[in-house]
Amino acid sequence: MAADAERLARFRRRASRGLGAEADARLLTSLPNILYLTGFRGSSGALVVTRREAILFTDGRYRQQAREDVHGARVRIIAADPVAAAARWLRARRASRVSYEPQAMTAAQLDEVRGVLGARVELRPGKNSVETLRAVKEAEEIARIRAGVELTARVFEEVLPYVRPGVRELDLAAEIEYRMKQHGARGPAFETIVASGRRSALPHGRATRKRLAQNELVVFDLGAIMGDYHSDMTRTVYLGSPPARVKKLYNAVREAQASACAAVRVGVPAARVDAAARRCLARHGLGRYFVHGTGHGLGLEIHEAPRVGPKSAARLEAGNVITLEPGVYLPGWGGIRIEDVAVVRPRGAECLTPLSTELISL
Amino acid sequence: MAADAERLARFRRRASRGLGAEADARLLTSLPNILYLTGFRGSSGALVVTRREAILFTDGRYRQQAREDVHGARVRIIAADPVAAAARWLRARRASRVSYEPQAMTAAQLDEVRGVLGARVELRPGKNSVETLRAVKEAEEIARIRAGVELTARVFEEVLPYVRPGVRELDLAAEIEYRMKQHGARGPAFETIVASGRRSALPHGRATRKRLAQNELVVFDLGAIMGDYHSDMTRTVYLGSPPARVKKLYNAVREAQASACAAVRVGVPAARVDAAARRCLARHGLGRYFVHGTGHGLGLEIHEAPRVGPKSAARLEAGNVITLEPGVYLPGWGGIRIEDVAVVRPRGAECLTPLSTELISL
Repeated sequence: MAADAERLARFRRRASRGLGAEADARLLTSLPNILYLTGFRGSSGALVVTRREAILFTDGRYRQQAREDVHGARVRIIAADPVAAAARWLRARRASRVSYEPQAMTAAQLDEVRGVLGARVELRPGKNSVETLRAVKEAEEIARIRAGVELTARVFEEVLPYVRPGVRELDLAAEIEYRMKQHGARGPAFETIVASGRRSALPHGRATRKRLAQNELVVFDLGAIMGDYHSDMTRTVYLGSPPARVKKLYNAVREAQASACAAVRVGVPAARVDAAARRCLARHGLGRYFVHGTGHGLGLEIHEAPRVGPKSAARLEAGNVITLEPGVYLPGWGGIRIEDVAVVRPRGAECLTPLSTELISL
Repeated sequence: MAADAERLARFRRRASRGLGAEADARLLTSLPNILYLTGFRGSSGALVVTRREAILFTDGRYRQQAREDVHGARVRIIAADPVAAAARWLRARRASRVSYEPQAMTAAQLDEVRGVLGARVELRPGKNSVETLRAVKEAEEIARIRAGVELTARVFEEVLPYVRPGVRELDLAAEIEYRMKQHGARGPAFETIVASGRRSALPHGRATRKRLAQNELVVFDLGAIMGDYHSDMTRTVYLGSPPARVKKLYNAVREAQASACAAVRVGVPAARVDAAARRCLARHGLGRYFVHGTGHGLGLEIHEAPRVGPKSAARLEAGNVITLEPGVYLPGWGGIRIEDVAVVRPRGAECLTPLSTELISL
């Protein structure tokens, strides 16, 4: 990532009120935030940012990797826990006000940091400034997400010919994840969902040994990690000639998905996008079968800001990248979900998913 | 898992001193702990255990799944955050002393729980009782881990014929993960490592587009999730006829791995097992190239108790399942690691990995 030094500067500017008035130093423990600010991709690390310095603490396993990947921060290889090492560094520097990331710090870690810093250092929860920066994607980030979304769509289309009665859900999931890697993804963004028949009523139905059967719905929910960025896509297909009820439900979900998409615009509350999908399903008498939020931001994490749900307090900003994925789940019968990824643009949503949402019957 | 109700009873017995003297109720937020005690496999949930009750809070996405999977606990489907819902339930029940899991609760969650419960309720970090129970595996758990370890070894052997100059690391990783799923694993236990040439000096080297070349070391570190349990295995192969230096280093690591294995016995401190491997590498002048611990417990998580490192305070118990995986990493040159999984038995280690540790040259 070329933008690391600039991102760190932006973070400092954003936190500067805090770095003057609230804290001398910020202790960052969220790995996606650390990746965003420095380029570090390891599984264990802590980052301290002061006005003048940025130091990444990690262990010997990541010595070479950190040397190659990290920009804008100095790297300290330590034998102990990186959070404790960061705390000791802060103590040695006589930091007097330190902020931490309350969502990315366990109660145990906070206790340890408090123990190292002692009672005289003021330790306080920081605002989610890095998450706020991350929610607005740079052009290069959008390009990476687009590449991941396109790869995901391509894999789905490649696998469609194998979708037929008799095939096991898990074989399709394995085929999907194999092709993702083959096409250059680091791997799936989450455990690929292939849920058929009554199992399609499970919003998070893992692929099992169950075999697909004629006249069944099959929900595919798949995404890849590509150049550190996540993609996400859901399509529901029908094996056979869809009966009227399936068509009716499918079209209601499709309409809800399109309504959510049409509600997207810079400045609109994310909750209003959710409400658009929800209202549409309620109109079809399906409100109570829609049991989750309409979507979520995605980027270095599969779920990030802004959330698109009934309780979301966010307002959409230009450069947000979100999923739009209403669904209905009728226990004992089956479920339908349709999901695209969209960039929030001044005049509306730019859909990145290059596939129609029409019902696919096979 | 048939053992859930019994596990919950064991947990209550174990925590009973606590449930009398320390807490009225335990609030559990570690998902592997919740899975262990109740069978719940969702990605969001909180479990409250009192003397008489056990209630699992989760959201609508997991209604049907929870109904099928959860035993021994009542399920409450809630629209809000499960941790907050659990806290409200505890407030309504007038719990006066509540313990939580400090390693599995974020500072933000703890703050919220404190806010809901108010100042009069005593909220304190609980001991790691579930982790302690989980560290000693039941026979059925060992059988599952064995099945996963055997599947992993089988996949490795199946993929060996494809390991040749010109092949990309990521194609081998994709092939490995595909076959895991095909043979019935839920998926890889972690991102499969295929690190060749100088990249083998990265202890956690992700598979990349790099192509394997003649006269290179290749480190494979792979594991599967099978029936909820993790497996883990590392083998290092050489493409070509290994020069003397490679043989010498390889045999030093192999000797270190065997020494660690020979040190395993019920009652022995885990740190002594680590020391056995470390001493052996030091004798070969390689001490400073061994940059991580010798191993870790594995089960519902890929890393769990007991840790096998220089600072581990654990003593090995019968039924612990651990990895033994010393390695050496020479920056700019390459690395070698060998890893088996072993069950701790009264008289020594029972190795579950059904493959020789001899150097494979292809």
